[in-house]
Amino acid sequence: MNSLFASLPTTVFETMSRLAREHDAVNLGQGFPDDPGPLDVRQKAAEAIVDGWNQYPPMMGTPELRHAVAAHYRAWQGLDLDPESEVMVTSGATEAIAGALLALIEPGDEVVLFQPLYDAYLPLVQRAGGVPRLVRLVPPHWRITEEALAQVFSPRTRLVLFNNPHNPTGRVFGRDELDTLARFCTRSGAVLVSDEVWEHVIFDGLSHHSVLSLPGLRGRAVKIGSAGKIFGMTGWKVGFVCAAPELMRALSRAHQFLTFTTPPALQQAVAYGLGKERDWFLSTRAGLQRSRDRLARGLAGLGFSVLPSAGTYFLNVDLAPLDPALRDEAFCRRLVERERVAAIPVSAFYAEQPVESVIRFCFAKTDATLDRALNRLSAVG
Amino acid sequence: MNSLFASLPTTVFETMSRLAREHDAVNLGQGFPDDPGPLDVRQKAAEAIVDGWNQYPPMMGTPELRHAVAAHYRAWQGLDLDPESEVMVTSGATEAIAGALLALIEPGDEVVLFQPLYDAYLPLVQRAGGVPRLVRLVPPHWRITEEALAQVFSPRTRLVLFNNPHNPTGRVFGRDELDTLARFCTRSGAVLVSDEVWEHVIFDGLSHHSVLSLPGLRGRAVKIGSAGKIFGMTGWKVGFVCAAPELMRALSRAHQFLTFTTPPALQQAVAYGLGKERDWFLSTRAGLQRSRDRLARGLAGLGFSVLPSAGTYFLNVDLAPLDPALRDEAFCRRLVERERVAAIPVSAFYAEQPVESVIRFCFAKTDATLDRALNRLSAVG
Ligand SMILES: CSCCC(=O)C(=O)O
Ligand SMILES: CSCCC(=O)C(=O)O
Repeated sequence: MNSLFASLPTTVFETMSRLAREHDAVNLGQGFPDDPGPLDVRQKAAEAIVDGWNQYPPMMGTPELRHAVAAHYRAWQGLDLDPESEVMVTSGATEAIAGALLALIEPGDEVVLFQPLYDAYLPLVQRAGGVPRLVRLVPPHWRITEEALAQVFSPRTRLVLFNNPHNPTGRVFGRDELDTLARFCTRSGAVLVSDEVWEHVIFDGLSHHSVLSLPGLRGRAVKIGSAGKIFGMTGWKVGFVCAAPELMRALSRAHQFLTFTTPPALQQAVAYGLGKERDWFLSTRAGLQRSRDRLARGLAGLGFSVLPSAGTYFLNVDLAPLDPALRDEAFCRRLVERERVAAIPVSAFYAEQPVESVIRFCFAKTDATLDRALNRLSAVG
Repeated sequence: MNSLFASLPTTVFETMSRLAREHDAVNLGQGFPDDPGPLDVRQKAAEAIVDGWNQYPPMMGTPELRHAVAAHYRAWQGLDLDPESEVMVTSGATEAIAGALLALIEPGDEVVLFQPLYDAYLPLVQRAGGVPRLVRLVPPHWRITEEALAQVFSPRTRLVLFNNPHNPTGRVFGRDELDTLARFCTRSGAVLVSDEVWEHVIFDGLSHHSVLSLPGLRGRAVKIGSAGKIFGMTGWKVGFVCAAPELMRALSRAHQFLTFTTPPALQQAVAYGLGKERDWFLSTRAGLQRSRDRLARGLAGLGFSVLPSAGTYFLNVDLAPLDPALRDEAFCRRLVERERVAAIPVSAFYAEQPVESVIRFCFAKTDATLDRALNRLSAVG
């Protein structure tokens, strides 16, 4: 057995969703919306399954979806992507990340990551043979600084695994932070792999800057997106990878042996969905922003110290002002068992020296769900 | 970049399907049926997408599908599987194989494989850090012998990657061969990972013996299945892994970071499909057997030397009796470009010392498609 995988725990999201079911809790842990997702997109998929092609589509994805991805990113992010050589469809963003690491890391390469980090990143980097170098982001601002980067980048840095907008902090990194990061990548010749699955889930009129748009990075950046997040149907597992042709060649080799292809009916529906009018995306954002504000207001009203969230489905609460002795994991366990509300302890996103005073709530829920949770939380705030 | 993946070619199946499209050829290369798949199963999926749950299902698969898999294998193969701890759903069998290798191989472990081999196997074993030891199967019988196993097994053998029924040879290994293999695995303490995606595609009244039913292997075998192959919808990418709980623990750790989950609507439809009455499966087999016989008869009538096929969608032709100078790759290229029929050169399934006189045809096609191909082939037989 592989010693790394044999010793890993179950992912915290799965564990917390199981506890939520067992205790009949309101599940604000694992990030998925209450809303069933756009009916027209689901209907397209249903039609394609009944009337369309259910055999292997091309390994790189259907031509329709690859063109739709390129057109979508041109319209929304000003990116100039060749759908034939610079766009690939994967079975979700997780596969895209796993594939990118297996394809781009040579055993012994140094890989820069940012803590708190999504729990899949570190084991995948290690299994690919990478030597992790961790940058620490600290609350309440979670900023990327030149000093922190200088500590971990070296001439042996070959890859950076980045995430923007950032889970679990809800940060959308500023243009200055991105430029600093780009400079470090260019200087060390590292490839920047960027998990941008939350690119559409941003608030307060912010806009998303993809790594592919940063100076000097067009040929050394890999952008990863997710239809599951864009359309709020997290079970669909349709992801996209965008990168220059030379990188894409290696990325496609990993993809062809990890899942090979992705269900064509879902690809067809996503291609349709990406062409929806601008208003649909903006009003989806506005709805999520209202939910964020409702939960933030409610939690603040209960006496919780709510940290800002500029993107993602998540907002965080700092427990320290409430009681410096509270530990996130114990607190989340109490919440799910006694108050019957599931949240995620942010310490689960650290590989070392965890911040243990912050817990994460998912607000992508109906008003009724959020109010039910707030009601149950009124005993602890 | 990873040196292994950077230097790999595109998979031969993808390349040949592209050539088939370019030359408007009858595509008997990549293995997928003409038939659109069972309408009722597709309708279930369509209903589930419109009316059901489109968010993350449990990481191990939906309880319905895991129970259906256990019940199906109990009925068809007499296996006694606990759906909670011994069955996991993956995003296709390819993901299951990749995950099993990443989860079970520790860098430096020796891994036994059988040539000809499916082209994903060797790069995945190597990327996981395994040291491949290749057993050679030779036409026309492609038998596993004690002598061949004795040459590659060693006290350092930790894993065996097996495939039965076997692609591309169409062999269903005999009980004697399986028992020999099991003895070697037990003696060296190796885990036997068995790609059994063709388990339902067997002919002439044969029955399938899973590795999980072999003496002494219940705790050291991993069985991999595929709904795409069972229902002839190769684009669905729903796979299953069955193994004892201790192995499953490690396997699930790899799965949770490779794709995490598989679309719940497709899982629901597959759960329904696996419960279809016995007759459906038997008449599907009978239909494929008729297609095999039609193509075999036609090819023999044209003067080709057809090798036996007991399972899979494939039958092979030995070119040597026709002309010992023919090389499979050149011959397939001529077929697709001039005769406009795509087939796969079996040398693509070898890592070293390829057999170069055999080409593979996929017969899972309508009579009209097969007849069209035969008609075009009449110029070369
Ligand atoms: C793979 S389950 C986790 C989903 C998610 O993005 C989150 O909750 O952070
Ligand atoms: C992943 S495409 C190959 C499909 C198949 O099993 C084959 O043609 O051998």
